[in-house]
Amino acid sequence: MTRARDLGIRIGHGRPGALNAITDVPGVRVGHATLIDGDGPLVVGRGPVRTGVTVVVPHDGDPFHEPVFGGSFTLNGCGQVTGLEWLRESGLLGGVIGLTNTHSVGVVHDALIAAAVAVGLDDTWSLPIVGETWDGMLNDTNGFHVRPEHARAALDGASGGPVAEGNVGGGTGMVCHEFKGGIGTASRVLPGDVGGWTVGALVQTNYGDRDQLRVDGVAVGEALPVTEISSPYGISRSPTAWTDAGSIIGLIATDAPLLPHQCQRLAARAAIGAARVGCYASHGSGDMFLAWSTGNRGLSAHAGEGRHGPMTVPAATVADSWITPLLLAAVEATEEAIVNALVSAETMTGVDGAVAHRLPHDRLVELVDRAGRLNR
Amino acid sequence: MTRARDLGIRIGHGRPGALNAITDVPGVRVGHATLIDGDGPLVVGRGPVRTGVTVVVPHDGDPFHEPVFGGSFTLNGCGQVTGLEWLRESGLLGGVIGLTNTHSVGVVHDALIAAAVAVGLDDTWSLPIVGETWDGMLNDTNGFHVRPEHARAALDGASGGPVAEGNVGGGTGMVCHEFKGGIGTASRVLPGDVGGWTVGALVQTNYGDRDQLRVDGVAVGEALPVTEISSPYGISRSPTAWTDAGSIIGLIATDAPLLPHQCQRLAARAAIGAARVGCYASHGSGDMFLAWSTGNRGLSAHAGEGRHGPMTVPAATVADSWITPLLLAAVEATEEAIVNALVSAETMTGVDGAVAHRLPHDRLVELVDRAGRLNR
Amino acid sequence: MTRARDLGIRIGHGRPGALNAITDVPGVRVGHATLIDGDGPLVVGRGPVRTGVTVVVPHDGDPFHEPVFGGSFTLNGCGQVTGLEWLRESGLLGGVIGLTNTHSVGVVHDALIAAAVAVGLDDTWSLPIVGETWDGMLNDTNGFHVRPEHARAALDGASGGPVAEGNVGGGTGMVCHEFKGGIGTASRVLPGDVGGWTVGALVQTNYGDRDQLRVDGVAVGEALPVTEISSPYGISRSPTAWTDAGSIIGLIATDAPLLPHQCQRLAARAAIGAARVGCYASHGSGDMFLAWSTGNRGLSAHAGEGRHGPMTVPAATVADSWITPLLLAAVEATEEAIVNALVSAETMTGVDGAVAHRLPHDRLVELVDRAGRLNR
Amino acid sequence: MTRARDLGIRIGHGRPGALNAITDVPGVRVGHATLIDGDGPLVVGRGPVRTGVTVVVPHDGDPFHEPVFGGSFTLNGCGQVTGLEWLRESGLLGGVIGLTNTHSVGVVHDALIAAAVAVGLDDTWSLPIVGETWDGMLNDTNGFHVRPEHARAALDGASGGPVAEGNVGGGTGMVCHEFKGGIGTASRVLPGDVGGWTVGALVQTNYGDRDQLRVDGVAVGEALPVTEISSPYGISRSPTAWTDAGSIIGLIATDAPLLPHQCQRLAARAAIGAARVGCYASHGSGDMFLAWSTGNRGLSAHAGEGRHGPMTVPAATVADSWITPLLLAAVEATEEAIVNALVSAETMTGVDGAVAHRLPHDRLVELVDRAGRLNR
Repeated sequence: MTRARDLGIRIGHGRPGALNAITDVPGVRVGHATLIDGDGPLVVGRGPVRTGVTVVVPHDGDPFHEPVFGGSFTLNGCGQVTGLEWLRESGLLGGVIGLTNTHSVGVVHDALIAAAVAVGLDDTWSLPIVGETWDGMLNDTNGFHVRPEHARAALDGASGGPVAEGNVGGGTGMVCHEFKGGIGTASRVLPGDVGGWTVGALVQTNYGDRDQLRVDGVAVGEALPVTEISSPYGISRSPTAWTDAGSIIGLIATDAPLLPHQCQRLAARAAIGAARVGCYASHGSGDMFLAWSTGNRGLSAHAGEGRHGPMTVPAATVADSWITPLLLAAVEATEEAIVNALVSAETMTGVDGAVAHRLPHDRLVELVDRAGRLNR
Repeated sequence: MTRARDLGIRIGHGRPGALNAITDVPGVRVGHATLIDGDGPLVVGRGPVRTGVTVVVPHDGDPFHEPVFGGSFTLNGCGQVTGLEWLRESGLLGGVIGLTNTHSVGVVHDALIAAAVAVGLDDTWSLPIVGETWDGMLNDTNGFHVRPEHARAALDGASGGPVAEGNVGGGTGMVCHEFKGGIGTASRVLPGDVGGWTVGALVQTNYGDRDQLRVDGVAVGEALPVTEISSPYGISRSPTAWTDAGSIIGLIATDAPLLPHQCQRLAARAAIGAARVGCYASHGSGDMFLAWSTGNRGLSAHAGEGRHGPMTVPAATVADSWITPLLLAAVEATEEAIVNALVSAETMTGVDGAVAHRLPHDRLVELVDRAGRLNR
Repeated sequence: MTRARDLGIRIGHGRPGALNAITDVPGVRVGHATLIDGDGPLVVGRGPVRTGVTVVVPHDGDPFHEPVFGGSFTLNGCGQVTGLEWLRESGLLGGVIGLTNTHSVGVVHDALIAAAVAVGLDDTWSLPIVGETWDGMLNDTNGFHVRPEHARAALDGASGGPVAEGNVGGGTGMVCHEFKGGIGTASRVLPGDVGGWTVGALVQTNYGDRDQLRVDGVAVGEALPVTEISSPYGISRSPTAWTDAGSIIGLIATDAPLLPHQCQRLAARAAIGAARVGCYASHGSGDMFLAWSTGNRGLSAHAGEGRHGPMTVPAATVADSWITPLLLAAVEATEEAIVNALVSAETMTGVDGAVAHRLPHDRLVELVDRAGRLNR
Repeated sequence: MTRARDLGIRIGHGRPGALNAITDVPGVRVGHATLIDGDGPLVVGRGPVRTGVTVVVPHDGDPFHEPVFGGSFTLNGCGQVTGLEWLRESGLLGGVIGLTNTHSVGVVHDALIAAAVAVGLDDTWSLPIVGETWDGMLNDTNGFHVRPEHARAALDGASGGPVAEGNVGGGTGMVCHEFKGGIGTASRVLPGDVGGWTVGALVQTNYGDRDQLRVDGVAVGEALPVTEISSPYGISRSPTAWTDAGSIIGLIATDAPLLPHQCQRLAARAAIGAARVGCYASHGSGDMFLAWSTGNRGLSAHAGEGRHGPMTVPAATVADSWITPLLLAAVEATEEAIVNALVSAETMTGVDGAVAHRLPHDRLVELVDRAGRLNR
């Protein structure tokens, strides 16, 4: 798997963590279930299948019994992320996060409830968070191929360490800036004198026009002639073709001790990161972002029903005069996560022979170099 | 089926429509699938089953191809209503609305996508609206008894005319103010000199403390001694017991030509209607409201992908100086719909023999009469 | 000054604090500057003057240097409350809160900045919170009679202890439910076994239709024949007159240690309290609510510019499983504060001889008694 | 006055209008009152004065009697824009828009009310929209030098045609990306086959870190050694200095017939435009955006009190399938407006001799050229 930095592309000024992944935030775990099956003409219910599920476990504890503070931001709401109303109201992210295709939100939703019930949440309700982007250009999305066991497998397989990117999990059949997209991740570690905290991003990318694509500010997309690419959306033949398609789901995790409203602010900066790569939130794009903090734990008393636990719970909060470096880290980590999704994805052929080409590495490097931005 | 007005209870000053139901708004259709099966001890996956699905079709056209303007309001977000992000962003309510139990949101969600695909939406995404309240006190809710065919049946059975209330559809196993709750509906028709429009409400009620219940302002709840009722939540033995449970989903339809932001304002007034009955939005209550207008049609051009249709679409909007009567009508219709849910529901015995008693009609009438509010 | 409980009217089930005022929350201070001058025909710039400024100091420290956690809720946005964007973003309420008439927001706004500068905030910006309701029916509101020294006087005079209500401060010229309105306050103290915290409310009431007025659920407004009242708005001659006027600003303070999003939830419950009295948020009503917590202090590090202070700050938060009693207390305190505003206000004659009558105490008591709700 | 295109810098793919200004939208008018007086050490109340007021009149009619549809978006709420609650609630932008310094919001607010009263709005309330950014680095901002007559002069001087940029009006004392900022404007005209509508932007820029500045994607800021610039904020000596300062107010006008929620979407795209230049919404930045449509007129019936006018009002709306080009135009116009603000501003010396240098044109051109982005 090739990543942006392998090509000499560095986003921003901050320093990545050891893995340059959301799993640099201690305790965060990622699992994928990838479904690739069949080729040729679309037969609804049979395939070709190019889809999957990604599950992100937000911390190292039992996520179903212990929530953490979280927040969300919607840049353009043409998408489904279940559970947002409760996240906003309570400021708590409970359970795990599922990412899948648009038409499999329901099955993943109920599968995550079943997983919660299985670990003992049988006397209360569950309001899972499941986000989606639409993979119908490559995948038999109306064939409903994702089944509960796939969500379960993604959850069971979730682990720390390096994160598979590109055509995996929920990102399997995704297209971004008219190139092959999918899952990407990155991270930033702040210098010790501004807290030393880690900010990690994970994105499922499926948005964007070719001509809007910028990598480290370099207008890569408009420089790639249409003869070099092809897209299941059809090719943007002019710089004003407005493909109008898309969606991106972005997740931000940090070990900085943030309160819910501060998490919401980080989620908004993920949108800024997407804007830097060329997301302008076209009408049909669901550009939605979540953030949470593992820096405050022991919040189980918030989740309980009934008045049996402690009346108050201690929490710490990053003083706002120190929060700006975290905000910028969220911008940069998201920007780099998107570029990683594009660089790591492989060319994929899907339904009816539609091809989503990988962003060509050689041309990318050449263009970035010509603009004086390559770090060898 | 007994309704509030059958007992001499009149809410507010406005005049109901012919059916005093959301179906007084021309074109609005309601269907229920009610699942009641088994008795005795809870065996997860076997029952007892006390649940269902309600589907509301927002207008008389093909809802999957033609959206209408809509809006939403969340008073307390401890609940799941899918599709809200897109409703807020686009101002459009597309498809139909499903109401069910908390742990069946996913299955209904995907079933409504399948229904959209079945009528020809096979080349685009669907972001259905499915709301829930939790029926785990009476229902084997972790048994996942709602299946796609139940959602389909509720949709296929949707019709105008009188609406079944109480223990039906999504409201089957619900409890409200510690009495048996469920589905309720009501409507208001404005005098011709303020527009003559109709406002209809439909609620799925599952919220509230006994001692907070007020019917037409009369403090009915606190006057009913605990010996007269029993509740699966346990009985509130004092007026400060804070059962902390609940949820209400409220739908408002009108034929007044409203724009999306005006629909949102009507949705907020539904919350005021709930507040009048005694909803104070306790921590664990998901109090969420939707409103839409059938007074602007021909909005299919909004829903299409690609630039093939007309560039602009005409719409009408109620001048704001005339909107207040509509706002008050939404308050009153919701208030009465909740009372109708309580009055029409029947006593139900559910899992492990838990009993949710009907609000006793005789005592209700007596208390309302004593306060001078009965209309004989 | 007569208050609701002096007449035997008790709202809800909770227990008021010693003063039954927002000042029961330790450290909260209230000051009024009341401007009443002249009689007879309106001469813009000369009078008659019926207006003022109320300033609420949120805690016992230096409010300009030390913020507290806060939140807001807008039920209907036909009003001006400056500073809300920053309150929502930062979760911090800094400085003091000013309440005045609609057309004096600016002068109070800048006067509060000057006050901040005077105590040493000369090297940074100030974003004061100033709310308003419109008193043009009784006051020469376009005469701009409020001057900086009035805001300053209200601030300098702010103190704990009993709070003057009715025709004072910002509430001087206000009309509520077509009776004389103004400032009102109330409080609730929770039992020790649910935390023992205090919740205080202060309202500036200027909203509502006569026929919607309910006191402790009793439909007082529709029972008062129009011959008994008169209103500067003209009299609602039928129960469907929709006066369409109004506004209410509600403030909630508590010593419970809440985080910003929890404060926001309390602010929303203030709206429920208003709904219980008969506020239905008519089109032209600005129904806006703020809440803050004095239970977390030492948050100055949040307010500073530059990175000189501590990186993190400790905070406590009421566990959500214990928050419902606080939510209900906010409802009740607001409901009672509004009734106190109505009961304590005196009949006032204003511009062009317009008269806003006091809610008649004898009839109020008679009606509440007849409904069985009087506590002698 | 030099603008970006004069230097060979072109932002995006769209075509500007004749003036490349917000005034390309027919009827939109802009007026500035610029206050520059004194030099040397700061004496509060005396100077040096570097501030002003900009007034934007949203259409060619009487803005005080005729509102238009509008919406807003807050990316980071460390700022004051009055009137937002009513804009959001009603979807209407009434009156004119004032931009000034943070500590003059009040005086401009009340001056705009006086202007409304002067043209006959004497029997109702006014809730003006006044935005701000903080100019205390160059200006004696606590001297409160803006007076009502300055707001009045800006309003009276508002006209169509070319718009003065840089150190004028509300932008007089502003600093952006640690260079001299101020007012900027730009526009886009869509091709006829996607509607032919015009989108105009006007910004008051005061945000940003030097090292984050990108012009057409070129990392100009980090390439300019600190010896070449100086800033009243002190110089960012490293690319991770996080100056933490700022604010930007952005206005978007269009003649496309949009509904309120569509205006809100354009306002959000203005934030994306700012993100492209390097705004990452640091903690202390008030990044707030407004948009309105002149494509629906005749909305006076919305603004009236009382029920005397027509019950419904016709409106047109751009079909959502055609809205994406407008969204992208808002992004590009904002991005270019910011660059125009930077390019057109002149070096300014303010209080205590603080100097905000102009972005050096020669180096800017050299850097953009080296990256292959210059259009000669």
